[in-house]
Amino acid sequence: MASAVVKNSEITEVMDGIGRRARAAATALARSTETERYDALGAAAAVLFARRDEILDANASDMRSAEKKGLAASMLDRLLLDESRVKAMSEGVRQVAELDDPVGEVSDEWLRPNGLVIQRVRVPLGVIGIIYESRPNVTADAGALCLKSGNAVILRGGSESFNSSTAIHSCMVQGLAQAGLPEDAIQMIPTTDRDAVGYLLSGMQSTVDVIIPRGGRNLIARVQADARVPVIGHLEGICHVYVHESADVSKARDIVLNAKMRRTGICGAAETLLIDEACMATHWKTIADALIEAGCEIRGDETVCAADNRVQKADEQDWSTEYLDAIISVRAVAGVDEAISHISTYGSGHTEAIIAEDQDTVEQFFHDLDSAILLHNASTQFADGGEFGMGAEIGIATGKIHARGPVGAEQLTSYKYVVRGTGQTRP
Amino acid sequence: MASAVVKNSEITEVMDGIGRRARAAATALARSTETERYDALGAAAAVLFARRDEILDANASDMRSAEKKGLAASMLDRLLLDESRVKAMSEGVRQVAELDDPVGEVSDEWLRPNGLVIQRVRVPLGVIGIIYESRPNVTADAGALCLKSGNAVILRGGSESFNSSTAIHSCMVQGLAQAGLPEDAIQMIPTTDRDAVGYLLSGMQSTVDVIIPRGGRNLIARVQADARVPVIGHLEGICHVYVHESADVSKARDIVLNAKMRRTGICGAAETLLIDEACMATHWKTIADALIEAGCEIRGDETVCAADNRVQKADEQDWSTEYLDAIISVRAVAGVDEAISHISTYGSGHTEAIIAEDQDTVEQFFHDLDSAILLHNASTQFADGGEFGMGAEIGIATGKIHARGPVGAEQLTSYKYVVRGTGQTRP
Repeated sequence: MASAVVKNSEITEVMDGIGRRARAAATALARSTETERYDALGAAAAVLFARRDEILDANASDMRSAEKKGLAASMLDRLLLDESRVKAMSEGVRQVAELDDPVGEVSDEWLRPNGLVIQRVRVPLGVIGIIYESRPNVTADAGALCLKSGNAVILRGGSESFNSSTAIHSCMVQGLAQAGLPEDAIQMIPTTDRDAVGYLLSGMQSTVDVIIPRGGRNLIARVQADARVPVIGHLEGICHVYVHESADVSKARDIVLNAKMRRTGICGAAETLLIDEACMATHWKTIADALIEAGCEIRGDETVCAADNRVQKADEQDWSTEYLDAIISVRAVAGVDEAISHISTYGSGHTEAIIAEDQDTVEQFFHDLDSAILLHNASTQFADGGEFGMGAEIGIATGKIHARGPVGAEQLTSYKYVVRGTGQTRP
Repeated sequence: MASAVVKNSEITEVMDGIGRRARAAATALARSTETERYDALGAAAAVLFARRDEILDANASDMRSAEKKGLAASMLDRLLLDESRVKAMSEGVRQVAELDDPVGEVSDEWLRPNGLVIQRVRVPLGVIGIIYESRPNVTADAGALCLKSGNAVILRGGSESFNSSTAIHSCMVQGLAQAGLPEDAIQMIPTTDRDAVGYLLSGMQSTVDVIIPRGGRNLIARVQADARVPVIGHLEGICHVYVHESADVSKARDIVLNAKMRRTGICGAAETLLIDEACMATHWKTIADALIEAGCEIRGDETVCAADNRVQKADEQDWSTEYLDAIISVRAVAGVDEAISHISTYGSGHTEAIIAEDQDTVEQFFHDLDSAILLHNASTQFADGGEFGMGAEIGIATGKIHARGPVGAEQLTSYKYVVRGTGQTRP
């Protein structure tokens, strides 16, 4: 099995080499053709499936170490690969290959009165550093999205999945080689030493253009504190569903249930339900029955506790907790103003939904709130690049610089202006 | 006259207060109407002209201090205001008012197969910190652009222009007040203490969303090293004009002359001319005669020096120097590949022009180079938001994250997704 081969003292040298090779690969990729990138992704998808036994062996080794360390069952499940998961990973890479190619797209074009024709043309960002946690499939997903968008990538996964990621990475590189693209276009940091992350964040300004952290609150906080290059941050999702008094009861029930319980472990899962006091009598029991029947624990404020003895008492901490579990906090509010105020105070700017039939209230919710995704009469679990029609995604960005919401291939690009003249000089 | 009123020990407290008030103003601005922002800008434009004597008095005070300190003539000229410059500043604010309002614009909209309608809607970034140098008019320009785009701004100008900027800032605030918008929407740091910049860069992550530095290499380098919030960087412009052997001689002469000499002090001025060896005999003398007649000093490589005894010898340093003066460096190259290689090595990613009649060469230049702006048969001095039809600009961004090229009101926005459903849940 592969293991952490880099000694601490050698990290600077190793990382500088990775950076230099990534920069050279980025220049080559920026000049590569759509067909070359398409072929490399197709080849990588095939290799991933062909070498599945090798990937599963590496994963078994990671799983043994993780079990020995006593990792939680949810962590073990994120780490685990089986044949169907490897197949899904291979198909995911194939799907990225089939996406529209963003590189070279003319996203805008206009004519100036002096005859200059100005085009805005999409170009890759350059070199992207991606720091993620235990899911080994991110190695394939993120590698594929960066390649599709013409970027070189430096991957740094969690230490638990090091062997799995190394095996997957090897398949991606084989795909690159088969298409004649530089193998350095997708590099993986060959050590689990945490100092390598520190150096990636703060020592490689000339070779890394942007860092994308994908993981829990501690990871993101460290990256935002230490990074000396731009960061496209993916914060946690403290997502809200607000049920207005005009809501249709069965829509409210179905959407709240889906937003909370379809999958509790994703960032688009609802964590807090806000409900108008005015409709507690008419709407609450239907919603609560559905949640409780599905196995959800409810933690409510005083009004909700008073209305329903199946509800636990919520404390202040609950309003800013991302449970990622079958638990929901519930607060009764006086109306949309109070709902907006609560979300502005406790939300993470990720995704919020309003259930209402009154259009003015919906428009106020959309206008006054500033989260990446706002939905009307739809589940927060639609917060997903695939559901948005963007294909695969790196994650949901919660910052406002560069990209916001689902980060797919298009969001991994910048642009340049191409101006065609006939001899114009500026007066 | 106003002066630096904040004691060093109080900076943290003062800056935290500025940040809190900016955040509150940003929330109010995000919910303000287009008409309110339009009215505030119109009022500010009128106030700037009405209070011109006060601004000119403050500027006279700054000029006296600057002369006493022995500032260079070019610096003094940047600092100087007169009635016509104040009038131009007022008209500039009026022009920003008349721009299309970017806030709330639906930049994209699509329907998903499940019936969800997804809109991408422009929203302000939030709170912008702008750090600039001696030109006092930036106080009005940057304040106006941030207000137009619904952002609160914290301005920090150069110490030489402190009194001028304070007087201009006071007029902008009066405009806000007259339109009923929060006066804290445009704040100016009330001290020239450099520690305030340090705190703005690294201590205000919760109240500042992005920093835009506008100035010389040292300022930008400090900001990029110290900032703990995203930076939209404006590096120097080492702009190139490449004359291909297929170039029309008179176009080459006119464009090189304009790119270098129209105004030598702006970032879009050409600093280096690359010319095909193959057309030295046919093109050089025409171009060189025009430059020399206009008073330009020429520093050339060996080939150019050998061809023309009016040329000084360039050294290695010349290729990476932004002269901002009537000096141009010239290198003879073997063809477009060598031109691209030279620009990739020495350029700053700002603006490059190719003069050529051969279309394939032009397309290679456009494809292989990755600068913010690439032009064919047109002057590099078109690198300007106004010339692009974007109205006023903060500057030309040379990074690739968020905004690239001219940064106008639209580039000072982010977006949110607004999703309209009819009860959809995710399968």
